[in-house]
Amino acid sequence: MIARTPDPPYYAVIFTSTRTEGDHGYDAMSDRMIELAEKQPGFLGVEHAREDLGITVSYRKDLESIKNWKHHAEHSNARQKVREKWYRSFKVRITRVERDYEFKKS
Amino acid sequence: MIARTPDPPYYAVIFTSTRTEGDHGYDAMSDRMIELAEKQPGFLGVEHAREDLGITVSYRKDLESIKNWKHHAEHSNARQKVREKWYRSFKVRITRVERDYEFKKS
Repeated sequence: MIARTPDPPYYAVIFTSTRTEGDHGYDAMSDRMIELAEKQPGFLGVEHAREDLGITVSYRKDLESIKNWKHHAEHSNARQKVREKWYRSFKVRITRVERDYEFKKS
Repeated sequence: MIARTPDPPYYAVIFTSTRTEGDHGYDAMSDRMIELAEKQPGFLGVEHAREDLGITVSYRKDLESIKNWKHHAEHSNARQKVREKWYRSFKVRITRVERDYEFKKS
């Protein structure tokens, strides 16, 4: 679903990735991470799609919410090792939403 | 592919959409639009994935490049009519990329 976000300004974290072959516990982790992310202060919504490329955009109230989530998520050395299993490559872009508009079929 | 973008700041336009049933000339248009977008001044790259939700992120140098593309793309009344055919809903978010980092499997 398209995330229902408030009026700008707010923040969007664009996470673009290419996967390794196989699951390696990825699906379970992915579900758990989204469940966890939704509980964090400042969480506004998330959108996801994957074909060859995966794109996850998570929306947050401010830079502090993003920083807190980053520290929450990176709490162990294990994380770095697990990344190697799941991803061939990824890029994270921290962006500030300046303006938005939408269309809905009547 | 993950877009190769320069160091921030630059801009990202996040286009999230849900489609109508059927093609209605969508694929041909989509290819043509990307071909056209790539030729515009200030174009930096594009990333796309679709499952239930479609996400296209296009990167541009500055707000002027985004504005020029918007005016280029919306040059006819036909566009609005065609939108009704292709999309159930979409949301466009104009964002400024403040920071980015990446991972590549060694």
